[in-house]
Amino acid sequence: MTLYFADLIKKKRDRQELTSDEIQQFIAAYTSGTIPDYQVTAMLMAIYLNGMTNEETVALVKSMIHSGVTVDTSKIPGFKVDKHSTGGVGDKTSLILGPIVAAAGFYVPMISGRGLGHTGGTLDKLESIPGFNTQQSLERFVEITREIGTCFIGQTKEICPADKKIYALRDVTGTIESFPLICASIMSKKIAEGIDGLVLDVKFGSGAFMKTVEQAKSLATALMNIAKSYDKKIVSVISSMEQPLGRFAGNSLEVFECVEIMKNKKFTGPNGEDMYADTRELSLQLSAQMIHLSGKTASVNEAYSLAVEALESGRALQVFEKMCKVQGGRLSELPAAKKSHKVTAKTAGYLHSFNVEKIGLAGIILHAGRMKNDDVIHPTAGIEFHCKLGDQVKAGDTIFTIHGDEPELFAEAEQLLTLAHEISLQKPPAHVLINTVLN
Amino acid sequence: MTLYFADLIKKKRDRQELTSDEIQQFIAAYTSGTIPDYQVTAMLMAIYLNGMTNEETVALVKSMIHSGVTVDTSKIPGFKVDKHSTGGVGDKTSLILGPIVAAAGFYVPMISGRGLGHTGGTLDKLESIPGFNTQQSLERFVEITREIGTCFIGQTKEICPADKKIYALRDVTGTIESFPLICASIMSKKIAEGIDGLVLDVKFGSGAFMKTVEQAKSLATALMNIAKSYDKKIVSVISSMEQPLGRFAGNSLEVFECVEIMKNKKFTGPNGEDMYADTRELSLQLSAQMIHLSGKTASVNEAYSLAVEALESGRALQVFEKMCKVQGGRLSELPAAKKSHKVTAKTAGYLHSFNVEKIGLAGIILHAGRMKNDDVIHPTAGIEFHCKLGDQVKAGDTIFTIHGDEPELFAEAEQLLTLAHEISLQKPPAHVLINTVLN
Repeated sequence: MTLYFADLIKKKRDRQELTSDEIQQFIAAYTSGTIPDYQVTAMLMAIYLNGMTNEETVALVKSMIHSGVTVDTSKIPGFKVDKHSTGGVGDKTSLILGPIVAAAGFYVPMISGRGLGHTGGTLDKLESIPGFNTQQSLERFVEITREIGTCFIGQTKEICPADKKIYALRDVTGTIESFPLICASIMSKKIAEGIDGLVLDVKFGSGAFMKTVEQAKSLATALMNIAKSYDKKIVSVISSMEQPLGRFAGNSLEVFECVEIMKNKKFTGPNGEDMYADTRELSLQLSAQMIHLSGKTASVNEAYSLAVEALESGRALQVFEKMCKVQGGRLSELPAAKKSHKVTAKTAGYLHSFNVEKIGLAGIILHAGRMKNDDVIHPTAGIEFHCKLGDQVKAGDTIFTIHGDEPELFAEAEQLLTLAHEISLQKPPAHVLINTVLN
Repeated sequence: MTLYFADLIKKKRDRQELTSDEIQQFIAAYTSGTIPDYQVTAMLMAIYLNGMTNEETVALVKSMIHSGVTVDTSKIPGFKVDKHSTGGVGDKTSLILGPIVAAAGFYVPMISGRGLGHTGGTLDKLESIPGFNTQQSLERFVEITREIGTCFIGQTKEICPADKKIYALRDVTGTIESFPLICASIMSKKIAEGIDGLVLDVKFGSGAFMKTVEQAKSLATALMNIAKSYDKKIVSVISSMEQPLGRFAGNSLEVFECVEIMKNKKFTGPNGEDMYADTRELSLQLSAQMIHLSGKTASVNEAYSLAVEALESGRALQVFEKMCKVQGGRLSELPAAKKSHKVTAKTAGYLHSFNVEKIGLAGIILHAGRMKNDDVIHPTAGIEFHCKLGDQVKAGDTIFTIHGDEPELFAEAEQLLTLAHEISLQKPPAHVLINTVLN
């Protein structure tokens, strides 16, 4: 067998196409422990460097799904839709759009991940709510979704175990940033969730995995091709991660922001603009796409109106509060950091650009995120944003506020944050949040 | 540490050059067990697909040597020289040239390998001599070389342990056929042998790893660059593996052929030519290069004359017999196969080409070679060649004789051998054994 799998590695090494059967055998053998890790990582590097065809990627998705169970959502009576974001800083829309779409009468069963590297994770945000339990059984997950309209849980052992094993290997062998491997990892888990439709929020910019719009569109197309081969309804929103989303990055800070938005509050920054506006708008746009995928609305605009209504009526907040309660979370006890520190503008001018990845790394220094899987998160730590791209600032104006309980970490984070923004004399072109929507 | 080594993998993945220190750390950590196999195989695949610079390869050689000990040959008073062949079918020159060069007054401390795939291994050949012990301590190895002029042993645990571990991984991850990895594996072991000079027999053709002369020259150049950075004298003979060498392929059969040649015997084939001639000539040419590397001869021609004299006088045979005796081998008890089977020409014409790799695979079917490391070799099994390229044959003439004790394997081997030669009506161009010598 070892020699047979070595032949498959050679085939990929030599840029030949693997058959569906070969991919299926490889993944099944790895899941059952027949193939050692060291053969898998050689294959992963060959895939990283030589790529995979669409057919190969679809076969990889299939074999990852088959390595575990698919959630049986047949007891949920309506349209089941989820959203997946490729990750960013301050990217907290899941917590708002899940309740909005549920309040609009659809179902959002969401299996989320943890943050790794500079990007945050929905699970970490929810777990900053004291008592919130993201480890529900799949049966309970379906039950809660059915009752409340949405439920947020973490990856379970039953779903795509091959993906979990392979992801751990990719993390330490330089094979994370591979299109087919990313596609397979994302889509296998989403398809195994038992959903009817999926909205992708594919981000581009300095805080995104994909630096350019073109790269983001390519990834979106690859992901959509897979979903379509499974007859799932799918749409991609290509959105900017050239600046952090909203007012906060950091776990309990982001939950706070979401609740404020669901309470229809605004927070006016020093330049007179609502610092919640972009989080709110992206959440509504993504909700509209999710609702429209159901086929129950005549246009995205109609779906958008339903989303606005669900949000403004307070019904989305009710869903969120119910969901927190049923999952054990005590929202009223959301913790806040004890210390803070302002990071100010060194010169006057226009806020010209952010290095969003560096902002994310400053978050890691504050323990708002993790660099390694076993790093411990401090739920209250994070960064507050006072300006958006294009804002005019004077020297000494606050650009960021660092929040946390460990002031000894603030100096290093401040240093990074100072490097993470540029002020120029010329006003930059207006920042556009949503670049395009791909069907 | 795991993340640091992941960064080195990413560097190679992204075609950046690794520093000597980084390569040294990687190999040292793997030797000591700090890096898991699965990180090494990802690195090996990245090296396979992205290559290594000359500096990186030299650093890899150095770190492999440093993973173990270097043989202390300071007690051997004269010029110490070895030969390495890139492998072929019937390639038995080591057993003749070691004794020739020793008989001419130089020293040949030879650490050899086993056969794998279609190519044979010197150790397997010697071990077909009953009692021959290739597992000598390094002290005894130096002692025997000093006393007799040559000694043949197998790879020991002390020499280049990193190479041994890495080779085992390469074998099952499709990363054998990589220039820098091949170079590092060959040269680290040869430099650790404590030699002053090395002659490379780099083969090209259907039975060689390198299919073309150009590829063989490239490999020779890469190998020589490494040796030169270690101030070792080196020369490469680029020789043909478009046909098997000599009269036999198979372990005890090849020892028999070597002894016959050292007894200055000839064996006339059906076309009137000496079937030992090419083995004898290549052994003499390689011996001449080895002798000339010492700087004690004015020309390769003079060195060639010394080699001929050592062979024709019977002194090379005496060295071989002494070496066998001191290593426990009972040459007079060399076993022979009990059964044989002729493979005949299906049509008349000229022997136009051999597929030498297929001939080697026929040898594996007969258990004269091994496909996997733990396959057991049958020492008497093998193939006898009756014709050379360009020979005229009639339908029914014997082309090969299969030898072995397991006649049930003969049909499958015959099938392969029938596919492994082509007879045409046109006489092919004359076959040239040695293409060129590179200094």
